[in-house]
Amino acid sequence: MQQADIGLIGLGVMGANLALNIAENGYRVAVFNRTVAKTNEFYAEAGALQDKIIACETLEDLAKNIRAPRPIILMVKAGEAVDEQIAALKPFLAKDDIIIDAGNANFHDTVRRLAELGANDPTFVGMGVSGGEEGARHGPSIMVGGTPESYARIEPVLTAISAKYEGESCSALLGPDGAGHFVKTIHNGIEYADMQMIAEVYGVLRDGLGLTSEAIGRIFQKWNEGPLNSYLIEITAKVLLASDKKTGKPAVDVILDSAGQKGTGRWAAIEAQMLGIPATGIEAAVAARSISSMVKQRSEAAKAYGDLGTAKLSDGSQAFIDALEQGLLAGKIAAYAQGFDVMAGASKERGWNIPLATTARIWRAGCIIRSQFLDQIAAAFEGSEDTNLLLVPAFVERMQSGSKSLRRIVAEASLAGLPVPALSAALNYFDGFRQARGTANLIQAQRDFFGAHGFKRLGEEGDFHGPWSDA
Amino acid sequence: MQQADIGLIGLGVMGANLALNIAENGYRVAVFNRTVAKTNEFYAEAGALQDKIIACETLEDLAKNIRAPRPIILMVKAGEAVDEQIAALKPFLAKDDIIIDAGNANFHDTVRRLAELGANDPTFVGMGVSGGEEGARHGPSIMVGGTPESYARIEPVLTAISAKYEGESCSALLGPDGAGHFVKTIHNGIEYADMQMIAEVYGVLRDGLGLTSEAIGRIFQKWNEGPLNSYLIEITAKVLLASDKKTGKPAVDVILDSAGQKGTGRWAAIEAQMLGIPATGIEAAVAARSISSMVKQRSEAAKAYGDLGTAKLSDGSQAFIDALEQGLLAGKIAAYAQGFDVMAGASKERGWNIPLATTARIWRAGCIIRSQFLDQIAAAFEGSEDTNLLLVPAFVERMQSGSKSLRRIVAEASLAGLPVPALSAALNYFDGFRQARGTANLIQAQRDFFGAHGFKRLGEEGDFHGPWSDA
Repeated sequence: MQQADIGLIGLGVMGANLALNIAENGYRVAVFNRTVAKTNEFYAEAGALQDKIIACETLEDLAKNIRAPRPIILMVKAGEAVDEQIAALKPFLAKDDIIIDAGNANFHDTVRRLAELGANDPTFVGMGVSGGEEGARHGPSIMVGGTPESYARIEPVLTAISAKYEGESCSALLGPDGAGHFVKTIHNGIEYADMQMIAEVYGVLRDGLGLTSEAIGRIFQKWNEGPLNSYLIEITAKVLLASDKKTGKPAVDVILDSAGQKGTGRWAAIEAQMLGIPATGIEAAVAARSISSMVKQRSEAAKAYGDLGTAKLSDGSQAFIDALEQGLLAGKIAAYAQGFDVMAGASKERGWNIPLATTARIWRAGCIIRSQFLDQIAAAFEGSEDTNLLLVPAFVERMQSGSKSLRRIVAEASLAGLPVPALSAALNYFDGFRQARGTANLIQAQRDFFGAHGFKRLGEEGDFHGPWSDA
Repeated sequence: MQQADIGLIGLGVMGANLALNIAENGYRVAVFNRTVAKTNEFYAEAGALQDKIIACETLEDLAKNIRAPRPIILMVKAGEAVDEQIAALKPFLAKDDIIIDAGNANFHDTVRRLAELGANDPTFVGMGVSGGEEGARHGPSIMVGGTPESYARIEPVLTAISAKYEGESCSALLGPDGAGHFVKTIHNGIEYADMQMIAEVYGVLRDGLGLTSEAIGRIFQKWNEGPLNSYLIEITAKVLLASDKKTGKPAVDVILDSAGQKGTGRWAAIEAQMLGIPATGIEAAVAARSISSMVKQRSEAAKAYGDLGTAKLSDGSQAFIDALEQGLLAGKIAAYAQGFDVMAGASKERGWNIPLATTARIWRAGCIIRSQFLDQIAAAFEGSEDTNLLLVPAFVERMQSGSKSLRRIVAEASLAGLPVPALSAALNYFDGFRQARGTANLIQAQRDFFGAHGFKRLGEEGDFHGPWSDA
């Protein structure tokens, strides 16, 4: 039998779908799973794609069945399993082979793994893959970290299996070592912020205006035809309009309001903290999920506080619904501005040269946050990446009008007792960012008072201390 | 000469003042500094306290001059310098001696340092010290992590040198290994949130009502006589009322609005993230300092956005000033609730048993966030520490009225374009926390739609998936 073009280890949901995607695109793929039964099952169900698949029972088999130099994708659980897999695989590989970790790795691990491989070991690529099960099967967004040489070798297959946005592939080399996994982490952080802001608007519509899930679903359906058009808005409409089979009620109405998280949102927040770059939208979203999981305490608090006699929303007019749409869009712009700023910061700190426009372009299709909006972001960064999105003329214009709606939503929700943490964070980021004279002069005075930290004077060089001893 | 009761290494501002504090309290202290000249200078300036001080030129000298078993305080720069100092010191110490790191260590390092010491090495205590220069000299708040045996040995001197709140010492053993430094980190995080909320209120008064620094100073002076009474409010009034010697202008008006940070606020945010416990007040404060340091971008943004035609504040009446006072207090309660929750979470995760009431008690004097308010927190946790401050009856009552003011401030500031990120974070935390039915059901539906993550149903056991295939 002809040797495979590429190998894939780990036939869980994501791995299996990625393997089928590779096969369907005409590449021969050798697959391996720790449990042989799973490999056999996968092969048995591959149908017409079987002739492009080589099912292997051992890692030695796998290596033999791939044409050298071998690219091998790992799609195993992030963490120790990846290290174990690399160690188990290494003896069967040669210097020119490439191990590609396609899991949701923490980029620090990716950097370490590459560094741990010796000069005669295979090389290593960290590859972020977004799009869930469907994306893996029919075209994900692929964020690669590695050398140009490694990427050149795997580009044909990645380009083939990736999502396409108006014909352009959503796979790209974004920088060396951990750059791909870092970008995937920030992608997920932005996804958290995006989802949280949508949930907040849902809350205003549900609790502020008393609308049914179906009515809210129709609003999102309509919004998906406008500037908010995106995968997340589309599926929000779909889940709001779906009915629970058991009760006939709207499906979302029978779901417990306690959100899970698998850690990438938290990683994004931590990395932003380490870099000292504001990512308050992501932080608010992660915190909101944590608060949601405190089900018992929330119930106690609801009883303890009762009705606080908060204000009602002004009205449920179309103008207010439109303000929600525009406010959500403005919030989204601020959250994305933060996310891209974190990537720019990491890129500088680590010398990664992450191309921001390209990053936006490969997020336009395949991934969870895919949208037309990202096409506008790509255009904004085209030619000049050393800026904050909030300073790009096209977005200045949008925020000038959109911020009015965002203000109205945040103010009304605050008065009505409806939590809007991510939308508030977005507004406060915007208002802090556009303030020529902020209030940190007071903080510097306090710090100098109690800790003699010193401060700078307006328009003067040097460090100064205040006249506090007289105070 | 009689041997010393205790040793101290590192005669920087904090170390020198701590040594004088020890001597003044009747304990004989042997001191050492890497630069001998500094040791001599310190000794020369010690005046009447010289007879309680033994200036040592070598570490061997230092060890010889302390009565065994020897307690030795390190007050050197946090980080590698601590490891180097421990390594240099160890050869001169015995098994029963205690090395006490009194710097702003990251608690992970403290845990590691203790673990690295062998059975025949001296033992190790991680001790957080707050209060700045003045506190070190006349009574700091002292947060100790170590064994009860170690603490018993150093308690007399720590009790003597610590701040006193109505006669009670502000030094306590808070748990094993890293507990003391962890609590100090969260103390600093809360300090960030506290200072940021004060700066936001200052901004509303300055930019929203157009008040002068002097007028604002008088308002804070008055607030310091009410429920906000605290060191930070006191010094805020002082710095606002101080005049710049060079220009005669209010001192804060000539200070650049770019705040520095030394990392403990960031550490607090990161630890909260690692624990999955919301600390959005701290996060907002850290982010606000980061934004403040983007001086050039803020100036560009101010030009790009110009006057957005935002609303004016309703009025500058006494009722509004009172709402600011009450809103600031409510924001403070929420921020402290988060901080204490983070400590409770870490305590559970690491089996530290941090006594929350005691922690609040030793923060009542000596440290930067000292206040009467902490006496009320101590009382709230007395007897029942397994709760969130927002659920304690005394605070429920205060938040029921205080949240009204906080709402008003956040809403008006949002409409007026004045950034209030930490106050907004506090309000949103409160409103999310007291919501029996949140909006995370929508997030769970989205996650199940795109990632098959599953969800729980209201009032049912088990994991479910949605009817999305029909959608």
